[in-house]
Amino acid sequence: MSAEARLSAKLAEMGINLPAAAAAKGLYKTVIFDGHLAYTSGHLPVTPDGQILKGKLGKDCDVEAGYQAAELTALGILATMKAALGSLDRIRRVVRLFGMVNSTADFDQQPAVTNGASQLFADVFGPEHGIGARSAMGAGSLPLGVPVEIEAVFEIEQ
Amino acid sequence: MSAEARLSAKLAEMGINLPAAAAAKGLYKTVIFDGHLAYTSGHLPVTPDGQILKGKLGKDCDVEAGYQAAELTALGILATMKAALGSLDRIRRVVRLFGMVNSTADFDQQPAVTNGASQLFADVFGPEHGIGARSAMGAGSLPLGVPVEIEAVFEIEQ
Amino acid sequence: MSAEARLSAKLAEMGINLPAAAAAKGLYKTVIFDGHLAYTSGHLPVTPDGQILKGKLGKDCDVEAGYQAAELTALGILATMKAALGSLDRIRRVVRLFGMVNSTADFDQQPAVTNGASQLFADVFGPEHGIGARSAMGAGSLPLGVPVEIEAVFEIEQ
Repeated sequence: MSAEARLSAKLAEMGINLPAAAAAKGLYKTVIFDGHLAYTSGHLPVTPDGQILKGKLGKDCDVEAGYQAAELTALGILATMKAALGSLDRIRRVVRLFGMVNSTADFDQQPAVTNGASQLFADVFGPEHGIGARSAMGAGSLPLGVPVEIEAVFEIEQ
Repeated sequence: MSAEARLSAKLAEMGINLPAAAAAKGLYKTVIFDGHLAYTSGHLPVTPDGQILKGKLGKDCDVEAGYQAAELTALGILATMKAALGSLDRIRRVVRLFGMVNSTADFDQQPAVTNGASQLFADVFGPEHGIGARSAMGAGSLPLGVPVEIEAVFEIEQ
Repeated sequence: MSAEARLSAKLAEMGINLPAAAAAKGLYKTVIFDGHLAYTSGHLPVTPDGQILKGKLGKDCDVEAGYQAAELTALGILATMKAALGSLDRIRRVVRLFGMVNSTADFDQQPAVTNGASQLFADVFGPEHGIGARSAMGAGSLPLGVPVEIEAVFEIEQ
């Protein structure tokens, strides 16, 4: 099954559509290609109807809500990649994910939150190619007060 | 107009000179080259007379001061690149910027702060090549109490 | 002297053994290879008997303890690389380190803490190849409450 087909199945299961690729919210491009690598900008969680999620883990957002925000952020990254590449089938694998989690000083479950993005990529690209290297860390705060910001590096077919 | 010429024009407009390339402040090199990519270390905002800026966004540093600190940090990155390459004209484009903004728990305008660096690179390298992928995040604290730390990846002519 | 021999000498001096390569603690791989580059996941400080260190710089962990935690984290990265490559002698150099330091809002000595990892790599790979580009920043919190998390990029012999 292709990544496109797996994404369709996943979206059907979630009962949502792939969001539109978000425009850059500052002086940056949402993705840059260099040879066989694609570097995405940090993406924020945006609902299918365009609402930006807010919240801080350890305060007003629990791990499950953070997980779902990370999943939504990963969908936004896929929307960016699909808009840039035409098809997600041109993505060979996930090389690296960087999960920045808006956290209180005591919150220590950033990996469990970031798993929301990792699981989505594993579902779409398969467990071998969908899972790459990763760092997850606690950010004292994040742009627009979002609970999670995620950056990805993909290997693509040229 | 070359990047060098645009930088000169920008510096004249700002009324300052390009600072001297900063020495590493620890066990690291300020830039590493790997093929056609240059990875800079995280740079801190240093004034032309060598003073390191301090401050935390959301507390004792407003967005405009943060923007100027990011601009100064970007100048320091250019100083590092010019010292290493001989001329900024050897830089083909900005691939990635990572803006770490020293922030209180509530501050949420890291992109507006990081724009200070992005705008300088856009002015020097032009809007197409000067703007890359980017993540901006809130750091709970930063080395030496600076308001902003910035890391860059450039594509260079070999 | 080879990197393997220098590591053995360093471990003898520290009176410890290289820890076992840690399993991934979430949906990620501990290292990904792309051509001549190896991207590690963020590693946490784990003692040789498997205990994960806890603490926050500026609160219950001083710079010396943080330095030692960074050193231990670097050993864990080497364990990952040795398990993946067979021998550390296949590592040509350190390209980049990213040191995330669990810090209070006022702590500002993240470079001194991260030096614990940088010095170990300099000891093992030599000062020219063991020292790369680096960013060190204050994280408001980190996974499992560790004092430091470190991510590395190495150049390897293919």
